[in-house]
Amino acid sequence: MNDIPHQSGMIDIVDKGLGPLEEPLRPDDTAGLRWQLLREDLSLPAAVLYERRLANNLDWMQRFVSEYGLKLAPHGKTTMAPKLFARQLAGGAWGITLATAPQTRAAYQHGVRRVLMANQLVGKQNMTLIAELLEDPAFEFFCLVDSAASVDHLGRFFRARGQTIHVLLELGVTGGRTGVRDDAGLRAVLDALVQWHGTVALAGVELYEGVLTEEDEIRALLRRAVAITQELAQAGRFERQPAILSGAGSAWYDVVAEEFSKANIGAPLDIVLRPGCYLTHDAGIYQAAQTQIQSRNPIAHKMRAGLLPALQVWAYVQSVPEPGQAIVALGKRDTASDAGMPRPASHFRPGIQSKPSPAPAHWEVIRMMDQHAFLRIAPNDDLQVGDMLAFDISHPCLTFDKWRQIPVLDDAYQVIDVVQTFF
Amino acid sequence: MNDIPHQSGMIDIVDKGLGPLEEPLRPDDTAGLRWQLLREDLSLPAAVLYERRLANNLDWMQRFVSEYGLKLAPHGKTTMAPKLFARQLAGGAWGITLATAPQTRAAYQHGVRRVLMANQLVGKQNMTLIAELLEDPAFEFFCLVDSAASVDHLGRFFRARGQTIHVLLELGVTGGRTGVRDDAGLRAVLDALVQWHGTVALAGVELYEGVLTEEDEIRALLRRAVAITQELAQAGRFERQPAILSGAGSAWYDVVAEEFSKANIGAPLDIVLRPGCYLTHDAGIYQAAQTQIQSRNPIAHKMRAGLLPALQVWAYVQSVPEPGQAIVALGKRDTASDAGMPRPASHFRPGIQSKPSPAPAHWEVIRMMDQHAFLRIAPNDDLQVGDMLAFDISHPCLTFDKWRQIPVLDDAYQVIDVVQTFF
Repeated sequence: MNDIPHQSGMIDIVDKGLGPLEEPLRPDDTAGLRWQLLREDLSLPAAVLYERRLANNLDWMQRFVSEYGLKLAPHGKTTMAPKLFARQLAGGAWGITLATAPQTRAAYQHGVRRVLMANQLVGKQNMTLIAELLEDPAFEFFCLVDSAASVDHLGRFFRARGQTIHVLLELGVTGGRTGVRDDAGLRAVLDALVQWHGTVALAGVELYEGVLTEEDEIRALLRRAVAITQELAQAGRFERQPAILSGAGSAWYDVVAEEFSKANIGAPLDIVLRPGCYLTHDAGIYQAAQTQIQSRNPIAHKMRAGLLPALQVWAYVQSVPEPGQAIVALGKRDTASDAGMPRPASHFRPGIQSKPSPAPAHWEVIRMMDQHAFLRIAPNDDLQVGDMLAFDISHPCLTFDKWRQIPVLDDAYQVIDVVQTFF
Repeated sequence: MNDIPHQSGMIDIVDKGLGPLEEPLRPDDTAGLRWQLLREDLSLPAAVLYERRLANNLDWMQRFVSEYGLKLAPHGKTTMAPKLFARQLAGGAWGITLATAPQTRAAYQHGVRRVLMANQLVGKQNMTLIAELLEDPAFEFFCLVDSAASVDHLGRFFRARGQTIHVLLELGVTGGRTGVRDDAGLRAVLDALVQWHGTVALAGVELYEGVLTEEDEIRALLRRAVAITQELAQAGRFERQPAILSGAGSAWYDVVAEEFSKANIGAPLDIVLRPGCYLTHDAGIYQAAQTQIQSRNPIAHKMRAGLLPALQVWAYVQSVPEPGQAIVALGKRDTASDAGMPRPASHFRPGIQSKPSPAPAHWEVIRMMDQHAFLRIAPNDDLQVGDMLAFDISHPCLTFDKWRQIPVLDDAYQVIDVVQTFF
């Protein structure tokens, strides 16, 4: 990961959420920017990452997974930020998980050489993108199959090219998302794999437990996956050594770690967990999930200081048009609103205060439009046009994808890097 | 608009929704691509624009506004696509409306020379961005003020730079968004403008009626705006000739046209309408709004053939895991879901069919995740892995901002251009 190629775009002067730029900036040339958030050097709204919290989360999850002797392939679709992928890999991650062929290519272009695409690979141009990457023998890639049709789809394309593609058998549940539902579905996939032997190679078993909401159902699915993995190993069906067993989104990775770490298939096994949101965490749905994890999982409990929200969006008050209401220049274009509204965390008056103060607990975003947030305050609260507010967010994925550039701040609100995204 | 500078980025090979590219492409060099949607040349999911429908909508709205003798400044925040701005301006638009300083700069970089920023301009770096553009005497710019604080905020910054900024007085309603609520608020703004005379120059009056839902309330607000504009004109308060009177989002532009076209302030007046969504229209909230407009407005009624949905998102079926359910590789990362789920419009089986057929009316997206859509079908419907589906969308704004590149298709599904966005 030391020589990441820079074929990607420059940091463009027309992008939002940045400070003054005379000309497009090379993504690596961000060290000397000297942009300072509290000095109003950034155009707000701006999404920002906090370096100390990022580093904490990066380390925390790698240690957690290592405690179980497992491997980490963070889901990169959350951030789509190659600079963050590089830090995850440098910190010990086994690979990067992605959701689509273009995401995979964007990661490859920035130096990622092992991708678990936790999704079916469908369509001529998508398969072409992957086939081109597979011409690099240093690139290892896996995608999912969950039906004979999906195996046939890959088989026809890659046999015509004389290439082999490695797949994971995806297990699912009735009423869930993708994944084989039952033994008949499983047999159909295995039969199709025999037909396409040499072209579509089974490397392991995969599931996404996040479609379920109850712990006992999740444990049952995980145990089914372990049992099927054992059977397939004993039947000599895996064409990668070690075989792979993979699961875990950001809400149940502890339960997956517990169940999968007990697996014994009589042969080496790469057990790969794929949480994505841990890196920035949030102050909404994933904070709630993490609170559960810290209370129910002994290792997470022992590690105490857990994940910290590392992503915020800063914005200006643009109007206080009537008592009890402020309008903030922050909209659906700038932050997720599908899993709870952004929450005011800090308040800062430029030129007057020296540092932000916590936002009162009763300030609440009650509605968002494309470019505006409606903030309910108390009638006599001291909130003025030009005041800056930091918002905690819920659901980092749908916040990241609204920004092409995200400044990284140190403890003094100084910009020390700019992270590019490739959505 | 003939010599649009190309300081913007190239069409990058890592972007999603495109066809095969050997190397980054200049935005102008898209004519010879020969990508064909039905031949699966595009990586799906892909957002696409239909040229014939775009041209229809472009022409329809310009004719509608011209019938009333008014001016059009389409809201560019919808598409943030300079190639589309250029077509709107070439078609007769007076200027482009935008929502933020970075949006304004992106438009300027691509040749737009008159911007109505239908928003307050707040914050040092945002004001700096605009101040730099105002150094070009060919650039005309307006933003909104709705409080003495907002006037003071601009006054302090621009007086220090020795520049003049033109503003529109924004009118609002209690419980609405921004805008002065009452006479006391109005007087406070006017007094502040006196204090900052020579720096903050009043150019007109503005409102956004879309925060209201009832026609009689909207007409009352519009009449208040006309009355205030007359008073200010008679008092000699406007520092631009003609003064500007502006309103209208995409749902009530006909009512705004009716009311504003009756205004007589005894002096020339530029009446500027700002719909944005008409260009691509949709098959959801704005289709419903347009149906109302076609029925209630005599000119729209007379013009008959109205706006057509010009934006769709194509995606693959990736799994049919159980009877009655298909999973489509299309998620919240690819299309708006805040104003209704995307709706299956067409179905196409590559290599088998010669053209798409209409999707059955009972196919319905019942849930979306970041990268997946859950499609309810009938148990025996013929839908297979690898089938292509075109989805109509509701709310174009939050679909556009999920794509950096959008192919434009002719009637034969051939890509004839690629539109870049700058969100």
